[in-house]
Amino acid sequence: MADNNLHLLSPRGFRAAGVCCGIKRKAGALDLGLLLADAPAAAAAVFTTNKVVAAPVILGREVIRRGMLRGVVVNSGNANACTGEQGLADAAEMAQLAGQSTGVGAEDFLVSSTGVIGHKLPMDKIRSGIADASARLGDDADSAAAFARAIMTTDLVPKVAAERDEIGGAKVTVAGCCKGSGMIAPNMATMLAYVTTDARISSELLSRALQSAADVSFNAITVDGHTSTNDTLLVLASGACGAAEDLLDGTADYRRFCDLLTLVCQNLARQIVADGEGATRVVEVIVEGADSFDDARRAAMAVANSPLVKTAVHGGDPNWGRVVSAVGYSGAKVEMDRLRHWVGDELVFDGGTPTDFDLKRCQQHMQGKHVVLHVDMGQGDHSFTAWTCDLSREYITINADYHT
Amino acid sequence: MADNNLHLLSPRGFRAAGVCCGIKRKAGALDLGLLLADAPAAAAAVFTTNKVVAAPVILGREVIRRGMLRGVVVNSGNANACTGEQGLADAAEMAQLAGQSTGVGAEDFLVSSTGVIGHKLPMDKIRSGIADASARLGDDADSAAAFARAIMTTDLVPKVAAERDEIGGAKVTVAGCCKGSGMIAPNMATMLAYVTTDARISSELLSRALQSAADVSFNAITVDGHTSTNDTLLVLASGACGAAEDLLDGTADYRRFCDLLTLVCQNLARQIVADGEGATRVVEVIVEGADSFDDARRAAMAVANSPLVKTAVHGGDPNWGRVVSAVGYSGAKVEMDRLRHWVGDELVFDGGTPTDFDLKRCQQHMQGKHVVLHVDMGQGDHSFTAWTCDLSREYITINADYHT
Repeated sequence: MADNNLHLLSPRGFRAAGVCCGIKRKAGALDLGLLLADAPAAAAAVFTTNKVVAAPVILGREVIRRGMLRGVVVNSGNANACTGEQGLADAAEMAQLAGQSTGVGAEDFLVSSTGVIGHKLPMDKIRSGIADASARLGDDADSAAAFARAIMTTDLVPKVAAERDEIGGAKVTVAGCCKGSGMIAPNMATMLAYVTTDARISSELLSRALQSAADVSFNAITVDGHTSTNDTLLVLASGACGAAEDLLDGTADYRRFCDLLTLVCQNLARQIVADGEGATRVVEVIVEGADSFDDARRAAMAVANSPLVKTAVHGGDPNWGRVVSAVGYSGAKVEMDRLRHWVGDELVFDGGTPTDFDLKRCQQHMQGKHVVLHVDMGQGDHSFTAWTCDLSREYITINADYHT
Repeated sequence: MADNNLHLLSPRGFRAAGVCCGIKRKAGALDLGLLLADAPAAAAAVFTTNKVVAAPVILGREVIRRGMLRGVVVNSGNANACTGEQGLADAAEMAQLAGQSTGVGAEDFLVSSTGVIGHKLPMDKIRSGIADASARLGDDADSAAAFARAIMTTDLVPKVAAERDEIGGAKVTVAGCCKGSGMIAPNMATMLAYVTTDARISSELLSRALQSAADVSFNAITVDGHTSTNDTLLVLASGACGAAEDLLDGTADYRRFCDLLTLVCQNLARQIVADGEGATRVVEVIVEGADSFDDARRAAMAVANSPLVKTAVHGGDPNWGRVVSAVGYSGAKVEMDRLRHWVGDELVFDGGTPTDFDLKRCQQHMQGKHVVLHVDMGQGDHSFTAWTCDLSREYITINADYHT
C-alpha cells in the first residue's frame, strides 16, 4: 500500500541532496541533485526512444551496461541537448566531478539534465553545485525532498511515491520521485524518474522488472504525444533490506517486488499527467477485450492522444463519437459492431450505435477530476490502461506564448 | 495552371445542383447536393481508413467496384454514422431516390453524408431534397457553386480548384470541390472531395492516378490527426474532352493528366488546412533527404501532428527543438548529426546543434500566413511535403465548448 510517510530515502542504503547553483533564473531555486548509494547498487534504466538524444542519454546508455552504479547527478534548467561534442564532454565531466566529490569513480554515476535545449551547460555553476551537494548528502526526509525539487523544471509540484511490503522475510521499500509535465518552455521538458529500493536483486532481473513496470506506467501516459530527447527512468537497488539472498526469477517474492515497482511507477506517472501543462482533469483510458496487448495499447493511446477527445473532456462532454472513431483509426483490430464504450460506468455505445444513455450522469462524471473512458473491443482478452489529461486553452498559452 | 474562372462543371459532361431541404438547423442553408454525369463515367474513389465507418462508406466501397458511375448524392448536417441497419437502408434509399429522379439506376450513384453522428437521417427531408435537386440540375457556375456549398458543414468557405491543359490533342479540364476543417461540433466532421474531369481514361488507370494524387494531397494534411468515419474522395471522368482515344499508361499524356489531378487535389487539400479549426496560419512541412518515401512521410507527419510544433507556429516562434525532436521520434531513420532544419530559408539547425541564426528573420517568416518548416535528413533522396495549420485557443473553444 502507498505510504505517504515514505520518501526516496526510505529504502536503506541511500543518501541524497538538492542544492541551488544558479542554473535556473529564479533566485534560490534548487537545480542540482545528487543521489548516492552507500555501496555499489544493482542498476537498470530505460531511456527515451527518440533518435535525437541529449548528451547525458548518450553517456547513460553506455554507463548502465555495467549493471552497477553508485548514484546519479542531475541538473535542471539546461537539458544539455543538441550541444555537440562539448555537450558530451560536459556530461562526462559531471560524472567525474560527482565521483571525485563522493570518493567513487566517474563510471559509477549516471548523469541527467533537463531544461532548455541547444545551450551549453554553465559548467562553473555545475562544478560548485556538485561540490555543495556532496557536502550536504543526507538520508532524511528533507534531503529526499530537496532532491525531488532540484529535478523540477516547470512542474507545479514535486512528485514522489513509495510502497513497502514484507518480501522474502525482509521489509522491502520501493520509492521514487520524478519530474515532467509536457514538453515545455523554454524549449522542451523531459520526464526524469529515479526509483530507489533496498531489495536484493541482480541487475539483470531488475532490468526486466523495470521494463515491465515502465510499459504500463511511464509508457502509458501522454500529455501531448511529443517524446522528449532526455527521458530517463533509473532504478537503484541497494540490497540493504536485510534479506538473506537475492530475489529469484519466477518466485512469488519476485512477483511481489515487481508489483511494488509497478505501483510506484504508475503512481509517479499519474502525477505527471495530473501536472500536465494546462491540465484540469486526469483521464484514465481503459481498453479491454483487445486481440493482443499491442492492439490494446494502440487503441488506448490513440484515444489518449486525440486532441478531440482531450478537448471534449476539457468541456466535460461525453463525446462517444470521438472515442469510438479514435479506436477505429488506431490500427488495432476493430469491428464496430462489437465495440462497447462506457463513460465512467454508464454504457454509451453498444454494438455499432449509441445507447439511450443518461446524459446528465455522464456529464457529472466528466466534470470530476478523474474521468474514466472505458472501451471493450470484443476481440480477445488483452487490456491496457493509458492516462492523459484534458487539453485546455492554458496548454496553448503555455506553449504558444513562449518566444525563443 | 490553376484557373479561378474554372469550376466543378467546367469539364464537359456534368451537371449539378445544391438545395436546402432542412437538415441543417440554419434556415436556408444548402444541405443536399447532386452531381450527375451525362453518360456513364469512369469512376475511382478513396475512402477513410478508419475501421469505424459510416453507412454510406460501407455502401460506397461496394458501388465503386464496378468502376463506372453516373453521379453522387451528398447530404450535409447528418453523417449517417453509427446508425446500424437503418443507416445502411437509408444510404441505399438515397442512391435509389437519386437514380429514380434522374432516370438511372440506384447502382449508378455514390452516396455521401457528413455532419452529426449517431442520429438517423431525416429521410422525409432527404426525399424532397433529392427531388428538388434533380429538377434544378445545371451545368453553369452557379450550379457548381451551389453543390460546393451544399456539402459544407462548419467550413467557413467553399473550396474549389481546377486545372486545364492540352493533353492528347484535346483540352482536358480537371476540377474539384471539397469540404472539411477538422473533426468538429456537434460530433465530428469529415473530408469529402469530388473531382470531375472530361479526360478519356479507363477506371483502372483513373484509380491508380487518384491513389497517387491522394497520397501527396489529402493524405498529406492534418488538422488534428483524427481520421473521420466518412472521408471520401471521388473522381468521375466523363471522357467528353473530345480526345480520339483513352489515355494510356506510361505515356507523357497520362503523366500530364496525373499532374493536373495531383495539382487539383493538393490545392483542395491546402484549402482544408487553411480553413482548419481555429487556424491562423498554414504550415508546410518539407522533408527531404529521407531514406525512403515512408520515412519522409513519417517524419513530415510527426512534425505536422505535434501540438508543440503547432503551438510554436501559433506563437510565431522558430522553435527548432520541437521540430527536430518530432523528427527524432517519428520512427524514420534519423542521425542527429546529419539533420538540417530551415525556418523559411534560414538554416537554424545543422549537424546536431543550432546555428547562429537570425532570430528576427525567422520570427518575421513565422508571423506570415504561410510558414515553411524545412528538414533535410541527410539519409537518402526521398521527400514528402505535409500541410497543417497552427493550434490556437480557438481550436479548444470550438472543440471543448460543444455539448452533446
